[in-house]
Amino acid sequence: MLTPAEDAEAALLLEAGTQKPGNVGPARDFDDTTFHQFLVGGVGARRGFEVAPEATVGEVFVESVRGSSAHRGGNTQFGALLLLAPLVVAAARGDVEEAPEVAEETTPEDAAMFYEAFDYVDVHVGDADTEYDVRDPEAREKVVEDDVSLYDVMKESASRDGVADEWTSGFGRTLHAASRLEMRRGGTRNAVRDTYVDLLKEEPDTLVEERRGREEARKVMEWARELPPDELDERLGEREINPGTTADIVAGAVFVALRRGWKV
Amino acid sequence: MLTPAEDAEAALLLEAGTQKPGNVGPARDFDDTTFHQFLVGGVGARRGFEVAPEATVGEVFVESVRGSSAHRGGNTQFGALLLLAPLVVAAARGDVEEAPEVAEETTPEDAAMFYEAFDYVDVHVGDADTEYDVRDPEAREKVVEDDVSLYDVMKESASRDGVADEWTSGFGRTLHAASRLEMRRGGTRNAVRDTYVDLLKEEPDTLVEERRGREEARKVMEWARELPPDELDERLGEREINPGTTADIVAGAVFVALRRGWKV
Repeated sequence: MLTPAEDAEAALLLEAGTQKPGNVGPARDFDDTTFHQFLVGGVGARRGFEVAPEATVGEVFVESVRGSSAHRGGNTQFGALLLLAPLVVAAARGDVEEAPEVAEETTPEDAAMFYEAFDYVDVHVGDADTEYDVRDPEAREKVVEDDVSLYDVMKESASRDGVADEWTSGFGRTLHAASRLEMRRGGTRNAVRDTYVDLLKEEPDTLVEERRGREEARKVMEWARELPPDELDERLGEREINPGTTADIVAGAVFVALRRGWKV
Repeated sequence: MLTPAEDAEAALLLEAGTQKPGNVGPARDFDDTTFHQFLVGGVGARRGFEVAPEATVGEVFVESVRGSSAHRGGNTQFGALLLLAPLVVAAARGDVEEAPEVAEETTPEDAAMFYEAFDYVDVHVGDADTEYDVRDPEAREKVVEDDVSLYDVMKESASRDGVADEWTSGFGRTLHAASRLEMRRGGTRNAVRDTYVDLLKEEPDTLVEERRGREEARKVMEWARELPPDELDERLGEREINPGTTADIVAGAVFVALRRGWKV
């Protein structure tokens, strides 16, 4: 039986270690970020997970982001770590299914640590019409002054970020994807990939939406419905379309499944 | 900067995460053991590495083997962990290059733990003409009674096992492969694969020798010299020839390179 920290790291690796259409993976490196850097990022992130039993969501998040930057590539796991932080804290306290409550109970100090995490990794940030911008070095003080919790920050961006949406809507897609994953037969590799493709079919990926526009994100959804996974991977790969938010949700789902006893 | 324990886990993952001709990897699962199980095995093994600063080689080894069995597949990392144990202990004490001395200083208690490790994983064992057989449940008491150290046990099997040979000959191939790895350009993926192929060219793999005979092992060496890596992978894959000992040495080499500051 693995600990919550070990399972969280395993979730990152099993997600990264599955070739999911469009993503960096066993069969694809990006120019700035490689599959091997995802492996090292997963190893480093565990530092944050290890402190979970005595730490807040913000502390777990910022420590895991720092750890995950132990390679020369770009951002590997930022979104997945943001999704995992409340799940890992809930699991370390005894029940992963309590993540929605853990998220709601975050504080302005957690929010300040969220902003601090951007110091450690080069995350793509879109134009956001918000009072607390991650590019504003004073944002971390402002959230504390204004008594804005990390949950509030997530609420603010839920409409344009699929991970923030999970945070503020009970982790519904994550928990449901975990259930589907647990029921799949045919080996871990296919189970993880197919769970990802199912998620792609259901909702536009918000990272694709953010980088390539709404129409492209809807096209990806249609392709996911029409094409077999290998062709979908080729289609997205040649167009350099990376549905990264959907991959983050898969990492969360793998973690939940592992905590529920799913075996690899 | 990663700790020795983190680097040791990273070494297992970077080795497993590189498609090396004939091995389980990103592009190949075996029927009984999959790539994803290697990832989980790497995560679990870190428990053993974490105790290194205060533990003996035998303790590190047995704990890492126990941890690495946290999946439903067969043996994933036994040989690599045997090679890594003295390297990790040396690194945790301050200098990975001291591994030869650490190996020499092992005790009969370390030997007993080596025999205990076979309880936790189904390792393929050949016919061995030795007084201390791993299939003999009393071997672990016998080595203590007879004052036989783990180094002595390794010496006994050095002629037929490449990892034991490393243990008792100063880790020469491992340290040298690390140096070559550090000098390679062209990305981690190719660097790890090419280091493996170079080792294959130089000496017959002892796991292949053990399972398929000396002639087959020499053929693999010749093919490694003649064929490009992709074709070599295909050739070995279709014949189900798995040069596992050479892969173990690569894991050790990656660890040494990481401790020397090699960046992914």
